[in-house]
Amino acid sequence: MVRSPDQSSTQRAEDSQYWEVSARFDVAYKVICANGVLLSSNPLLLQLGSSEKNCREDRARRLVFVESEVFRFYSEVINRFFCGEGSRIVVLNAMEKTKNLRLVERTVEQMIQFGINRRSEPVIAIGGGCLMDAVGFAASIYRRHVPYVRVPTTLLGIVDAGIGIKTGVNFGFHKNRIGSYCAPIATVLDTTFLATLPKRHIRNGLAEVLKMAIVSDATLFELLESHASDLVEACAESSPISMRIIKLSIQRMLEKLEPNLWEHDLYRVVDFGHTFSPVIEMLKVDCLLHGEAVAIDMCISTVIAAKRHLICIAAADRIIALTNCMGLPMINSDCTAANMQTALDDVIKHRDGLQRIPVPIAIGEATFLNDVSLQEVMEACEYLQRPFGEGALG
Amino acid sequence: MVRSPDQSSTQRAEDSQYWEVSARFDVAYKVICANGVLLSSNPLLLQLGSSEKNCREDRARRLVFVESEVFRFYSEVINRFFCGEGSRIVVLNAMEKTKNLRLVERTVEQMIQFGINRRSEPVIAIGGGCLMDAVGFAASIYRRHVPYVRVPTTLLGIVDAGIGIKTGVNFGFHKNRIGSYCAPIATVLDTTFLATLPKRHIRNGLAEVLKMAIVSDATLFELLESHASDLVEACAESSPISMRIIKLSIQRMLEKLEPNLWEHDLYRVVDFGHTFSPVIEMLKVDCLLHGEAVAIDMCISTVIAAKRHLICIAAADRIIALTNCMGLPMINSDCTAANMQTALDDVIKHRDGLQRIPVPIAIGEATFLNDVSLQEVMEACEYLQRPFGEGALG
Repeated sequence: MVRSPDQSSTQRAEDSQYWEVSARFDVAYKVICANGVLLSSNPLLLQLGSSEKNCREDRARRLVFVESEVFRFYSEVINRFFCGEGSRIVVLNAMEKTKNLRLVERTVEQMIQFGINRRSEPVIAIGGGCLMDAVGFAASIYRRHVPYVRVPTTLLGIVDAGIGIKTGVNFGFHKNRIGSYCAPIATVLDTTFLATLPKRHIRNGLAEVLKMAIVSDATLFELLESHASDLVEACAESSPISMRIIKLSIQRMLEKLEPNLWEHDLYRVVDFGHTFSPVIEMLKVDCLLHGEAVAIDMCISTVIAAKRHLICIAAADRIIALTNCMGLPMINSDCTAANMQTALDDVIKHRDGLQRIPVPIAIGEATFLNDVSLQEVMEACEYLQRPFGEGALG
Repeated sequence: MVRSPDQSSTQRAEDSQYWEVSARFDVAYKVICANGVLLSSNPLLLQLGSSEKNCREDRARRLVFVESEVFRFYSEVINRFFCGEGSRIVVLNAMEKTKNLRLVERTVEQMIQFGINRRSEPVIAIGGGCLMDAVGFAASIYRRHVPYVRVPTTLLGIVDAGIGIKTGVNFGFHKNRIGSYCAPIATVLDTTFLATLPKRHIRNGLAEVLKMAIVSDATLFELLESHASDLVEACAESSPISMRIIKLSIQRMLEKLEPNLWEHDLYRVVDFGHTFSPVIEMLKVDCLLHGEAVAIDMCISTVIAAKRHLICIAAADRIIALTNCMGLPMINSDCTAANMQTALDDVIKHRDGLQRIPVPIAIGEATFLNDVSLQEVMEACEYLQRPFGEGALG
């Protein structure tokens, strides 16, 4: 209600000194497991967000953004699926290096050319985290929001970038510095895309699964330990064990995200691995993947916790050993004092005046630190730079 | 709650076929009448959004964006007010022609350089609608949202651009094509700025007051009629009658906006005058003001309604006569068939498949049309192009 505190009726609006405006925005979206989403016989993708209950493929008019690598493998099936009159497929080269405002502008230009209706013709984004982040951001600002649907094609997209409501692009060297909170209508998870995903990119996604295991689920961690050696292959094949691990990771992630979708609480365990990684990721945007930067950050954070005796040595060792065993990096040459200081400075701005660094205190459990010194960080980096297995923690 | 429909507990997450995520976002902001907001003795502007209850001027660190024309008149008072250590004043040339993504980028660069904290150092935007729209948009996307405070310095900003939750910038020739819904912490209305506002810009703002009168308040319309000849002067002086008119207009506007802040309902009476105006405004972005374009649109829409006998001729004549009497244009040379067709085409996209054109059916009351033909629009334009008073409506 528009409340004018010093009056009982709007008849005397001219006397009011201020108005209080309040309203509530309800958000709801689905994360759907649906392998075979691009089969001609599968109507799901064209039904989402459609006002017509029995939307037929040949009537749905959609603007579809597809990542160029994905299109290389799936052009035929994608062309066949979106053969409806008036649909348009736009191939974008969306990677960390090109995930910026220019990419958003190109996306908006396509939306203008296509002339999407404001509410009833959802944009469809098919690709990895970078494509979904950029197209989702464009959708969130075009006419102040048009609906969109996400179809992640990478494991990182499936377990992480695709399931929350964050969109965004990099700005200069600043990772995801501009963006929005904007739920898709739905995210459709189809793990059969993983069959054509390079192994390194599967490991990249597994880093975020490992993150969820470390901060929230010891059972998930043990599953990863038990299957570490054949996990990449299992994901590529969508085998039962990989499906179990992926769904468990998503479940844990959504449990953490849902009560805090807009990050009103900046103490977020899902930020584990995301304190130092934004800086080191952007320094090597051509050759270090997001999950790899996160893995390095998780190892640094774990060693800091171990050296403070917040987590027992055995548990910390298991975390670092599993990271290594999963083929993820534990440290790299960009973990210099200058870069770590940059990361510490920025994280304080990003988390509004406090470090709020998530660190594990056991397998499946985390706490937050607000007083981590550069010296501690560098000691952790030095420990991790030794040949694996050498030196003692704690 | 994260609901997995085919299971009773999260223990069996691996079996779920989809998750439903839902959450609620509560928005609240104030629109405060507070003349003298930049007096050194007035702590209001520095207290808004501050965690410190007794925020002192010399401790508040603020990034302040000021429109260049405003700074020309008020540099001394603004510099004195924001003399606190660490505050920074950034002067921006924000007008319709420069209200684009480049301006947003420059604003974001300043936010990065300043290093604002994510939640506790609200950005302050002092200027007209263009500056508030662009800075508000930048604040809404920087780190996916940092708080901001608006201080409109134009009448259009005070009665219109400053009081809702919309932000945005133009994209190419497309008016406000990208933007966001993002409430400020507060908008502080200080009508003493109007003393230095060019008369034409006061008339510009009065067009939006006239809009609210026509669609929602016959008393406000009569007030405008009674004071039409000295209204501009009254606003410049913040005289009692102008304050009454301004507050009544804001009250009506907020009553319409609050139940529909995110425009879930696209039948919006506040869109009266905003069907044809976006196109003609952008064609003459250097010399036609927003309110002037809106005035033309209101006259066209009113004549369409009159020719359909939806509004009586006498009421339509009063609307057109008052527009003219307030020194606002009723038509211009850009109202060609080609441009009107462009406007009709775009409004259907913008209002999701239907025209939803608001037209008055009486003084203070409106309805919507979904079947307006180009011919009708052009007949209305032709009527308005005759010398005022000539020819008969209906």
